[in-house]
Amino acid sequence: MSVLTLSGGVGGAKLALGLYRVLPPETLTVIANTGDDFEHLGLSISPDIDTLLYTLGGIDNLELGWGRRNETWTFMAALESLGGETWFKLGDGDLATHIERTRRLAAAESLTQITDDFRCRLGISARLLPMSDDQVRTRLRTEEGWLDFQDYFVRLHSEPVVREIVYAGASQARANPDFLAALLDDDLEAVVICPSNPFLSIDPILSLPGVRDALRASRAPVVAVSPIIGGKAVKGPTAKLMAELRLPVSAAAVARYYGDIIDVYIADAADGGEVAEIDVAVSFAPTLMQTVEDRETLATAVLAAADRGF
Amino acid sequence: MSVLTLSGGVGGAKLALGLYRVLPPETLTVIANTGDDFEHLGLSISPDIDTLLYTLGGIDNLELGWGRRNETWTFMAALESLGGETWFKLGDGDLATHIERTRRLAAAESLTQITDDFRCRLGISARLLPMSDDQVRTRLRTEEGWLDFQDYFVRLHSEPVVREIVYAGASQARANPDFLAALLDDDLEAVVICPSNPFLSIDPILSLPGVRDALRASRAPVVAVSPIIGGKAVKGPTAKLMAELRLPVSAAAVARYYGDIIDVYIADAADGGEVAEIDVAVSFAPTLMQTVEDRETLATAVLAAADRGF
Repeated sequence: MSVLTLSGGVGGAKLALGLYRVLPPETLTVIANTGDDFEHLGLSISPDIDTLLYTLGGIDNLELGWGRRNETWTFMAALESLGGETWFKLGDGDLATHIERTRRLAAAESLTQITDDFRCRLGISARLLPMSDDQVRTRLRTEEGWLDFQDYFVRLHSEPVVREIVYAGASQARANPDFLAALLDDDLEAVVICPSNPFLSIDPILSLPGVRDALRASRAPVVAVSPIIGGKAVKGPTAKLMAELRLPVSAAAVARYYGDIIDVYIADAADGGEVAEIDVAVSFAPTLMQTVEDRETLATAVLAAADRGF
Repeated sequence: MSVLTLSGGVGGAKLALGLYRVLPPETLTVIANTGDDFEHLGLSISPDIDTLLYTLGGIDNLELGWGRRNETWTFMAALESLGGETWFKLGDGDLATHIERTRRLAAAESLTQITDDFRCRLGISARLLPMSDDQVRTRLRTEEGWLDFQDYFVRLHSEPVVREIVYAGASQARANPDFLAALLDDDLEAVVICPSNPFLSIDPILSLPGVRDALRASRAPVVAVSPIIGGKAVKGPTAKLMAELRLPVSAAAVARYYGDIIDVYIADAADGGEVAEIDVAVSFAPTLMQTVEDRETLATAVLAAADRGF
């Protein structure tokens, strides 16, 4: 038996950690979005992979909500004194991940190999796979023109109004073959779509050739967890983006957006009225994850819903 | 009026700082050895330039004797946890210099431009020039085979027995044109060869096409400061190297090694007997620089000797 989950960064990693803690850890495979990856200061940065590494490795920064625990910031201060770009905050410990990854990519190792080695070094028993070893870059057409993802998300604080989102390179990219194989494995019990941003974190994964077909062909139920609670996003630009993309800002709209790839939808009871009308089995659970116990409770509820089909 | 000095890392930077403090600072030009430069973890590292930047910028680490002040080491600990190479110690603040330099070199800026910008940012009024913008690499033939400089010096703690030293690329490299122009400037009052390692820090500079000729052609006296005190090196592998290269370990042997490019030799009184026999004007001064005052005293003595010709 095994479980596979699709995740973006911070929000998704919370549920991924819950699943990791309630399942035999080696039975979990986490697929990380790499549409947020970018090159900055000459370094290859994979924010969602790193958030998953730090969260599952138990070295996530609980105060900041992102980055590494016990982080220091000497590098950023020194970079500023040399006139370098400081809009993307790189902690001193976090830099080791980027420098070592960049070095190994330049030595022709794949992102999959490097990520697998890092998760072993950090003592993570779950499998962590980048969605692809090929470059896919989320780009946004905004009222200020086309923007790279991190320019939009970090430098401009998601402020520009978005009109269109593309996943540049996705149609030519090869989905991670271990990802596709896991989806079609007879032992797969559930596919869990984390409550990450559907447009910025999950869609890049779904846009890879073969992924939607493999999700539909999978024996396992596909369970998506709503990123909307009571008509609002917990954090980040999900609600703002939905409005800009002319979608209703609701848990139901996210379920309809996922369409026929999902079999079960997990929503918060606060959204009960709306989601009653969608064409997919719905199960209710507390989807706000503040404590580790919240994550385990939601993970248990998600797995139970997958098991019974609603 | 102006003064030019040739310097390697820690030892040379001490006298460079003394000169910087006793001269009108904008009249000083410091030429940095780049034969120690190397690529490590994908970063372009220029140890001697950085030592000079930190020392002249007043942010050198006084406890360690190398690197930046108020340094932290979170990066190295994180790199070790990921299985990265840790034999070359990179402080978190120091990393900013390497990452920003590497980024700018990749953007086709020259090492001279980058170094000049860094020294401005750090508030240094003296001019700091890399000996060349072309790649020169000090390599050593040892009893363990050919070694790159940092492999020999840092990774192997200068332990291998050295039989030959080459400055790979030097004969094809172009000496920094501002360096050659400064040597031939009518306003130049003195050229000071710092008490750096003659073979590992000064020779790479002297090996560049045109440098020895320009030193001989310069109107200014060339004053070298002995790196040997009482028959011993203050620090580093100078004495060990001299023995391995079959040279007497003495202040006089260093003067003879420099030969006709120097006009005045500054030695410690402890070496008075030996240096009396060399064919160049000798001046005695306390060459051990423990305090900032020692550096200023030696700098003043060096400039006075240049002025009077002995």
